[in-house]
Amino acid sequence: MSETRIVVFGAAGRMGRTIIEIVAETAGAKLVAALEPASSAALGEDAGSLAGIRKQGVRVTSDIAGALSGADAVIDFSAPDASAMLADAAALAGCAHVIGTTGFQVEHETRIADAARRTAIVKSGNMSLGVNLIAGLVEQAARALPANLFDIEILEMHHRHKVDAPSGTALLLGEAAAKGRGIGLDEHAVRVRDGQTGPRQTGSIGFATLRGGSVVGEHAVILAGEGERIEISHKAGDRAIFARGAVSAALWTKGRSAGLYSMRDVLGLTG
Amino acid sequence: MSETRIVVFGAAGRMGRTIIEIVAETAGAKLVAALEPASSAALGEDAGSLAGIRKQGVRVTSDIAGALSGADAVIDFSAPDASAMLADAAALAGCAHVIGTTGFQVEHETRIADAARRTAIVKSGNMSLGVNLIAGLVEQAARALPANLFDIEILEMHHRHKVDAPSGTALLLGEAAAKGRGIGLDEHAVRVRDGQTGPRQTGSIGFATLRGGSVVGEHAVILAGEGERIEISHKAGDRAIFARGAVSAALWTKGRSAGLYSMRDVLGLTG
Amino acid sequence: MSETRIVVFGAAGRMGRTIIEIVAETAGAKLVAALEPASSAALGEDAGSLAGIRKQGVRVTSDIAGALSGADAVIDFSAPDASAMLADAAALAGCAHVIGTTGFQVEHETRIADAARRTAIVKSGNMSLGVNLIAGLVEQAARALPANLFDIEILEMHHRHKVDAPSGTALLLGEAAAKGRGIGLDEHAVRVRDGQTGPRQTGSIGFATLRGGSVVGEHAVILAGEGERIEISHKAGDRAIFARGAVSAALWTKGRSAGLYSMRDVLGLTG
Amino acid sequence: MSETRIVVFGAAGRMGRTIIEIVAETAGAKLVAALEPASSAALGEDAGSLAGIRKQGVRVTSDIAGALSGADAVIDFSAPDASAMLADAAALAGCAHVIGTTGFQVEHETRIADAARRTAIVKSGNMSLGVNLIAGLVEQAARALPANLFDIEILEMHHRHKVDAPSGTALLLGEAAAKGRGIGLDEHAVRVRDGQTGPRQTGSIGFATLRGGSVVGEHAVILAGEGERIEISHKAGDRAIFARGAVSAALWTKGRSAGLYSMRDVLGLTG
Repeated sequence: MSETRIVVFGAAGRMGRTIIEIVAETAGAKLVAALEPASSAALGEDAGSLAGIRKQGVRVTSDIAGALSGADAVIDFSAPDASAMLADAAALAGCAHVIGTTGFQVEHETRIADAARRTAIVKSGNMSLGVNLIAGLVEQAARALPANLFDIEILEMHHRHKVDAPSGTALLLGEAAAKGRGIGLDEHAVRVRDGQTGPRQTGSIGFATLRGGSVVGEHAVILAGEGERIEISHKAGDRAIFARGAVSAALWTKGRSAGLYSMRDVLGLTG
Repeated sequence: MSETRIVVFGAAGRMGRTIIEIVAETAGAKLVAALEPASSAALGEDAGSLAGIRKQGVRVTSDIAGALSGADAVIDFSAPDASAMLADAAALAGCAHVIGTTGFQVEHETRIADAARRTAIVKSGNMSLGVNLIAGLVEQAARALPANLFDIEILEMHHRHKVDAPSGTALLLGEAAAKGRGIGLDEHAVRVRDGQTGPRQTGSIGFATLRGGSVVGEHAVILAGEGERIEISHKAGDRAIFARGAVSAALWTKGRSAGLYSMRDVLGLTG
Repeated sequence: MSETRIVVFGAAGRMGRTIIEIVAETAGAKLVAALEPASSAALGEDAGSLAGIRKQGVRVTSDIAGALSGADAVIDFSAPDASAMLADAAALAGCAHVIGTTGFQVEHETRIADAARRTAIVKSGNMSLGVNLIAGLVEQAARALPANLFDIEILEMHHRHKVDAPSGTALLLGEAAAKGRGIGLDEHAVRVRDGQTGPRQTGSIGFATLRGGSVVGEHAVILAGEGERIEISHKAGDRAIFARGAVSAALWTKGRSAGLYSMRDVLGLTG
Repeated sequence: MSETRIVVFGAAGRMGRTIIEIVAETAGAKLVAALEPASSAALGEDAGSLAGIRKQGVRVTSDIAGALSGADAVIDFSAPDASAMLADAAALAGCAHVIGTTGFQVEHETRIADAARRTAIVKSGNMSLGVNLIAGLVEQAARALPANLFDIEILEMHHRHKVDAPSGTALLLGEAAAKGRGIGLDEHAVRVRDGQTGPRQTGSIGFATLRGGSVVGEHAVILAGEGERIEISHKAGDRAIFARGAVSAALWTKGRSAGLYSMRDVLGLTG
């Protein structure tokens, strides 16, 4: 099979440089362009040098149309305005678009959905293969195991610097469980327990939070019944998993028809 | 919804008595008959007393046709010949049949498949909801995550008296993973590691076995990639989970059309 | 080595019957008497029959002095008044006393301490070998790893019927950690986290609570530093562990001089 | 308290640069010299620049005597000959010596022991605080819990590139358990299980090995009894833990009298 020709948008940023590194080490992926704004100090530099790896023979440029014209997919963790603009440009060039950007307004969503009628777009708020996979599994498990027999609990641990609880990913997993159960998370979430709590309420979804050390991020969903317990967990060891998921998504778009896809589609999950 | 009227076949055996107990505590399930062979010393006893719970007002009988005629489902963990005979009788009576028996020969399978054209039969070598659920999830995860990026490992722990390794359930989970990958387990299983093993072979499925104490049975399937790891695990705390799964299957058969079903159907898994 | 002759006090209660069963299956332990109050319906019954095991040739009696006179140790999970009285009787008889009773007032403690000048008494609010062991290990770990480098978190899971949080054992482990650190638990415990918590406070001890299914009791103490994490955990599968710990304590008293001992002494922990 | 003045020996190596980084971020530690051989290309460079952090105002030098004369401790992960020579020099200068070097011959050990009569030396084959801590806890747990009641199992997981099994650290933990039991590991280790194994042998120590992904190193020691289980585990997320342990050891030597110490002494473990 021929290689997937990949453009990195925002090549000099922290995520952009990680994506360049992952593309370089992924069989079947080939970096063909690295984009930065016209004002960037990185213009003209070799993309590999920028990423701290060997030279890639690709110089950073601000020529979006030129970059996309020879490419299969562009990977983009930028900002809402830039991503919506890039979706148009990618659709025009017949290039797929992998969007890891977050924080979109309705008007951005509309423009992206419009572009997705002309090219394949994969868009997700969390690009990790693993987290998306377990969210799909959790939804199915919550659907399959009756609420009167199995209690759902969600545990997460993060490093000591994290300032909020529960984590966004814990809530995403809670949403997946609630969807499987056909209920709303807000009405059924139990976010803390302390003192005289009384017995556990049937159908509730409990959260528990651990903080300490340098833990990148660990999540477990527990379905506990009489005499048996199922756990579905994800352990992140390194933040490059988001770049890896985006590169996997870019490879998946090759030969894919126009449409707006999620990471669940990339994973081939039916749930 | 009306109750599901349940017959327990082999009521005086260890599993039969556990099933009587589970039926008694399950909302929507009602014990209507308890069967034993004509030679059984338990004939005439109250099924509840037999099971060590309060009286159920159901006396143990050997009248199979009478028992099945007023029932929705019969639960059966007996022996191949008895189960094949019972499948005929259940089909004749229009009663569903939940079969946890193992060790069938081809001729038994044929008779059961034949009966399944006339009534709903749920048949599984492992009646635990949890193990069947995770087998389905493992198959999907193994399909979704590419073998060149994610390594699959299967860990199990059982009590000190277990005489073989890996456990049947560990192998069942390995089969599910191999099916998801589209490979054969036998050619890809790595059952032991000791000394100079060399690096892990891409696409292999590793097993590891722990033995100790009174652990009823714990299984974990690990999918380990660069920087992230997924674990899908099952912990059994008590052998009654097989009876519970059978009672869940019996409730599920209510109003179900004829056919041969597995626990995955009961769980509504699409994988 | 000769057998340790054991008396069970409160033989017909739930714990008493479990102790009879554990003594019967423990090499080196021999049941020599089973005590109940003079009003008990169980007087005269065989202790084994009472416990649901084979006959032990020991009939339940209310003759305390007679029972203790031929014994090495008496095991007692009763009530404060009864235990204080029994401590006197055991001291008089030269018989060791294993006390799992809780809820003592100062006057009970004084009587027991007094009896402990004449015989060996092992007294603990939690008779499980495992929980006492890990409490000792946690104290040492908390002492060894500096608070500015390692964060301490305590996680527990119990069945859905438990009405309070965190569990008494989680607090006991928190006390052990605080003692190792030379701090008070009350001033450093963080019992819940929700919303904008800010970064973790150095030196705090966090708690997290899971509830679900039929989990008997699981506790983990996590010490999380930069790039490494230690976990010390205990999983209870069955409530008989308290009886087992008491029988181990009884065996340990054989030939022991007078004194008031804890389960840490039985375990030989130096911490 | 005044700062501990630290010299890094082998400053330009991978471990040396990590140690420079850890010293720079550790309160109470101050880098006062960075040593390299006279032939090193790094001579004259700023130690911070070498380590990829901000400048430290310390230039790499080959003047050992000058470097040690103003220092409290020198940290050294070099080679046997160099370490033995450095022990002499450190003793002469009245500077403590932290040795993470491995592969010593008897003659090296003798020279180091001789130097330890004149200065404080901390020497360990594994400088991680966590691994040394749990080895001490495992030894105590194995001593406290009788072999006829508790089975010991050791589980480890490492990345897919590791070429041998079980890991050196798993064996180190097995040695700690065997020492606690007063037995030899070689006669009691069960390194693989497959097929018809028969029941677990009382007193054996089992090993199980998982390989996959990019796991840096995880070890768990399980003590499994009837109805309860203790686990003592260590998870490494990053190889800098060895540098961190060495810096902790250097701080610990401040004001310490001459002697040959281990990481257990640094941790204050009594076991």
